[in-house]
Amino acid sequence: MKPFMDKDFLLSTPTAQRLYHEYAADMPIVDYHCHVSPKEIFEDKHFENITQVWLGGDHYKWRLMRSNGVDEYYITGGASDWEKFEKFAEALPRAIGNPMYHWCHLELKKYFGFEGTLSPATAKEVWELAEKKLAQADMGVRGLIAQSNVAFVGTTDDPIDTLEWHKKLAEDDTMKTVVAPSYRPDKALNIDKAGWLEYIGKLEAASGVKLDSVAAVKKALTVTMEKFHACGCRASDHGLDAPVYRVAGEEELNAIFAKGLAGGTVTAGEAEAFKTALLLHCGREYHRLDWVMQLHYNAMRNPNTDMFRKLGPDTGYDCIGPAGGEVALARTLDALNITDELPRTILYSLNPCDNAFIGTVIGSFQGTGAQGKIQHGSAWWFNDNNPGMREQMTNLAQLSILGNFVGMLTDSRSFLSYTRHEYFRRILCDLVGGWVENSEYPADIEFVGGLVRDICCNNAVRYFKL
Amino acid sequence: MKPFMDKDFLLSTPTAQRLYHEYAADMPIVDYHCHVSPKEIFEDKHFENITQVWLGGDHYKWRLMRSNGVDEYYITGGASDWEKFEKFAEALPRAIGNPMYHWCHLELKKYFGFEGTLSPATAKEVWELAEKKLAQADMGVRGLIAQSNVAFVGTTDDPIDTLEWHKKLAEDDTMKTVVAPSYRPDKALNIDKAGWLEYIGKLEAASGVKLDSVAAVKKALTVTMEKFHACGCRASDHGLDAPVYRVAGEEELNAIFAKGLAGGTVTAGEAEAFKTALLLHCGREYHRLDWVMQLHYNAMRNPNTDMFRKLGPDTGYDCIGPAGGEVALARTLDALNITDELPRTILYSLNPCDNAFIGTVIGSFQGTGAQGKIQHGSAWWFNDNNPGMREQMTNLAQLSILGNFVGMLTDSRSFLSYTRHEYFRRILCDLVGGWVENSEYPADIEFVGGLVRDICCNNAVRYFKL
Amino acid sequence: MKPFMDKDFLLSTPTAQRLYHEYAADMPIVDYHCHVSPKEIFEDKHFENITQVWLGGDHYKWRLMRSNGVDEYYITGGASDWEKFEKFAEALPRAIGNPMYHWCHLELKKYFGFEGTLSPATAKEVWELAEKKLAQADMGVRGLIAQSNVAFVGTTDDPIDTLEWHKKLAEDDTMKTVVAPSYRPDKALNIDKAGWLEYIGKLEAASGVKLDSVAAVKKALTVTMEKFHACGCRASDHGLDAPVYRVAGEEELNAIFAKGLAGGTVTAGEAEAFKTALLLHCGREYHRLDWVMQLHYNAMRNPNTDMFRKLGPDTGYDCIGPAGGEVALARTLDALNITDELPRTILYSLNPCDNAFIGTVIGSFQGTGAQGKIQHGSAWWFNDNNPGMREQMTNLAQLSILGNFVGMLTDSRSFLSYTRHEYFRRILCDLVGGWVENSEYPADIEFVGGLVRDICCNNAVRYFKL
Repeated sequence: MKPFMDKDFLLSTPTAQRLYHEYAADMPIVDYHCHVSPKEIFEDKHFENITQVWLGGDHYKWRLMRSNGVDEYYITGGASDWEKFEKFAEALPRAIGNPMYHWCHLELKKYFGFEGTLSPATAKEVWELAEKKLAQADMGVRGLIAQSNVAFVGTTDDPIDTLEWHKKLAEDDTMKTVVAPSYRPDKALNIDKAGWLEYIGKLEAASGVKLDSVAAVKKALTVTMEKFHACGCRASDHGLDAPVYRVAGEEELNAIFAKGLAGGTVTAGEAEAFKTALLLHCGREYHRLDWVMQLHYNAMRNPNTDMFRKLGPDTGYDCIGPAGGEVALARTLDALNITDELPRTILYSLNPCDNAFIGTVIGSFQGTGAQGKIQHGSAWWFNDNNPGMREQMTNLAQLSILGNFVGMLTDSRSFLSYTRHEYFRRILCDLVGGWVENSEYPADIEFVGGLVRDICCNNAVRYFKL
Repeated sequence: MKPFMDKDFLLSTPTAQRLYHEYAADMPIVDYHCHVSPKEIFEDKHFENITQVWLGGDHYKWRLMRSNGVDEYYITGGASDWEKFEKFAEALPRAIGNPMYHWCHLELKKYFGFEGTLSPATAKEVWELAEKKLAQADMGVRGLIAQSNVAFVGTTDDPIDTLEWHKKLAEDDTMKTVVAPSYRPDKALNIDKAGWLEYIGKLEAASGVKLDSVAAVKKALTVTMEKFHACGCRASDHGLDAPVYRVAGEEELNAIFAKGLAGGTVTAGEAEAFKTALLLHCGREYHRLDWVMQLHYNAMRNPNTDMFRKLGPDTGYDCIGPAGGEVALARTLDALNITDELPRTILYSLNPCDNAFIGTVIGSFQGTGAQGKIQHGSAWWFNDNNPGMREQMTNLAQLSILGNFVGMLTDSRSFLSYTRHEYFRRILCDLVGGWVENSEYPADIEFVGGLVRDICCNNAVRYFKL
Repeated sequence: MKPFMDKDFLLSTPTAQRLYHEYAADMPIVDYHCHVSPKEIFEDKHFENITQVWLGGDHYKWRLMRSNGVDEYYITGGASDWEKFEKFAEALPRAIGNPMYHWCHLELKKYFGFEGTLSPATAKEVWELAEKKLAQADMGVRGLIAQSNVAFVGTTDDPIDTLEWHKKLAEDDTMKTVVAPSYRPDKALNIDKAGWLEYIGKLEAASGVKLDSVAAVKKALTVTMEKFHACGCRASDHGLDAPVYRVAGEEELNAIFAKGLAGGTVTAGEAEAFKTALLLHCGREYHRLDWVMQLHYNAMRNPNTDMFRKLGPDTGYDCIGPAGGEVALARTLDALNITDELPRTILYSLNPCDNAFIGTVIGSFQGTGAQGKIQHGSAWWFNDNNPGMREQMTNLAQLSILGNFVGMLTDSRSFLSYTRHEYFRRILCDLVGGWVENSEYPADIEFVGGLVRDICCNNAVRYFKL
């Protein structure tokens, strides 16, 4: 029996071990899509205890506690930090087979030097160890990033953001890691969601463009894109719920926009037309600016009304939405491609039933200018686990060219989650190493190691033109 | 090469073997959802030959024979019991990789002491062995249950059922296994199906409530629930075809009901509104009574019209229905949750493409009062096989807390199928044992063994409050 | 570590190896569905170089090159054959885990005797070796077929085809392999696609039936079927996009047909009704003629408008379509079955999410006259790879009788792709051998070997009545 999470964790063959230790482990991390705060990076935020750094904003852990029947008082409520941690330590050991179990222990080992396993019996020891560690000067956000060998951080930012902290970071010579914004204009597109009208006012202010037509909204988006571009932004991100595609004329679009501006409720078809027009505009501009377009879709947001009212969005109540959107997505790519304005694009669906479609539709729009111009994004959110990543990479390998994959991202709000790149790399090396051992690929370790390095880092550097 | 189905069948590692033999094997069976007859239990029904006990009502075996091109005469027709068994013995060896192959041999070994393999060459031997065995006094239904170490049997019963046999069983001191009804009100909800109007008449008679409004139907359901509750019922079950959710006002609902009562054909939308209103009523009442709600969905019933006319329902002609219903299901849970009337709920879809959704939507509605209040039910029907159970448990482990899973049920009409719990337990131990061997979980066998025991039995005891 | 693609490639256990080498390897190939040209067979076409035989019409390889960012000039454009091959040799090594990697090396070994691996470093060597080999007299199409041990080739042909080359082949005594047409009437059914009206004119000419009503179209189809039947055709094939089912009366159908004839645009519902009527007619006629009906569905054709305009269909731009069509398919089978006119039928969906449905709906329509009358077709196109074939066979084994499976087909346009049968057989033997080794099936090698031979060849011979 192999010791628990030793150096060869998840590496089941000698080739897998060699690939990981000799080729993958030391590659810098390019975390091209995440949700960390540039302000916290600039200010080098420190944390008092493990609850603050681990449970403060991590809705993955909140879900786990709720699945164990823990009262909300101990999750987002008034309980003390220690009480919250204690409840989490009770829940975790029951979660056998959950990636959280591995993430936690990878983080405890790497950042806190804890070699044991977290349980009610060890909770106090871990708490004290973390408290002591976190008091160190090099255990602030900057220290965590530095010791994680992170070359690039791509945050997620709203078009109306001043990018104040990104500018400060760019001017800070002591910061070795490149931190760049990504452009996420969902709020401008979502004419059917609460808050849109208020947002349009903010976008008007931020862009300086009077928003009296759809053309004006497009212009405002372009203005903010240029601002982002000047700050080093090279990627965008869209959260699409379900993909839609409905083409409408300028007049109809302006009527829809006017209806929204007047506080009216647009129909589903009207919202689709509005979103389609703006997404196509964005895609064309991303192509002009040589940005990467990321499309995340098929999440079901806030199905629990009661808890949404109490805690708001992004608090651990979302779930996987229906699979689908194939036709809308294909038409979106086609509409951009037909005028030669399709940017490099990464597709992520939250529903794994979409994997086979994604794996093949990317092949329908590949082209010159990039190896793997259209990408099947790494297993996202609820799929970001061992079987999920294996499935996404196997799917990609069977249907496309795995060697051109841009690889892992954390998509995280936490500065401890860089170990997920380690998790991904171990799984990648195990998968690829297994094929070599099993006579499915020649044992040219140097070449295979080169592919592994490409997937771990080099492909992303090339793809995002870092 | 391992001998065929020896003591370590499906247990591929030493840890898996230890977990199964030392922790899982001896746990009592809590068969919380099945379709056996309480009358046959009370009367201790005996069987003359293996065809009667094996092929009499088992549509899984009928399907297998039809897939082998066997004429219906030898399946449900006039052939002799021996001829039918002979045809089955011809078909089975070709079904390599089918769970039926394992179920049959587990049953032949456990109940008849047959250590060989069933084939045309051994059919006569098995027939004679079974005939001799079945003549024994302890090979009636009660004896089969007793030797299977079954602590609890939850049957499936119609609201109009008198529960006569359940009452007799409850008064019978010689019966050690607890047998309780489950409440399955499908016929009252299915206003769009043949037989509904006739059923409403029966429900009126059984409940003593004059059914002249939707409110009255709700009352009749509540009256019958109370009757079930008094007989020890602690769970309900719904077969939903596709999940629906459409809220209508009292007036519209009464108009729909009146239309149905008058023998009219309700529209799809009307049926949806009627079913939604009654399902939400049921859910609230289950919560009040502290029952568990089971929702089975996405089966396609009776697609073969010719055979449906000849043999009726539940004769082996159903198949998996389209995946979907995500929004309707989420809204159903939400509507119950928002007034704090969501009962403990188990979701089962027949389409495995729904697994990822189920695995995450349960996390959107977890809460206090139970570890794993909302459950992803064990792999159902066509998924109740080795890869299907692995997929359901892997999915559950990755997305929730496997240690809180309420585990296996037979869903069976047969008194020999308790070996499916053995099949499940072997797969569970192999899965979990594999993680331990592979360094994915600490080798704390006592703790892991405790989780295994919880999943095999203790969680169900707690969840159903037995 | 096993040597790259040695004799035990993909055979991970001794039983798998024994099954493959002693039972599977030497079985003749029954390639019952492919797209090779009977003219090229009759004329014994020869190829000048490897680009002509490998890259000339193989859109799988074109996709791979596009995924590597190769310019279209080197794929379908004006580059020299050598330049195209060089670009392919650059792309292939990056495609680790892609079945193309294995197909290529199986073909290079079997037909060209090349034991190395293709890469930029060996491209010249391979080019020269192939050039020399292809100059041999026995390396024309007939020689390739002969050395591949192919007993039967089922091509795919249009109802208006003269079958000239099939007739010549039938009269050619030197041709040992039976070559028969398959009937693919898609163009007659697709009233909603460009070219339909023109096609109807051709069908009128070919059948000699004046096409002035739907009844006349049915008659024309029957006339052409009879012609095919006389040429040895025993199977049909339909490409359905998404399955549809809408029954309309004769009058409505004739109005739809008249609208189409007048060059009008039919609605989606009208097209569905027209297609349903003709598909049911075809199915009944196939039953009368004792043919096999093959239904391929859920492909998304030509999503890339730009490249469709430049290169036309079947050039590597298709992708997997939405899963679904369950109800339409079940009703189609039911409508044929209810009058006892359901032919032996093989279902193939391009979307693997349909596997579970297919695996069960076949069981709803099995019957006498064939072991496995309704079949789940071998993993098709984008699923025709190691995990895809394992998934299809595992699904089939769990839900039906694997021993009755009609097995592999190439679905190919290339005369080198018979090695895909070898690929399939190795995977089959590994799967089945693994069950035997793992104690899931008795180690009766002779019986299991018989099942393997049935799946490799005998079942198809029986099923297609060759």
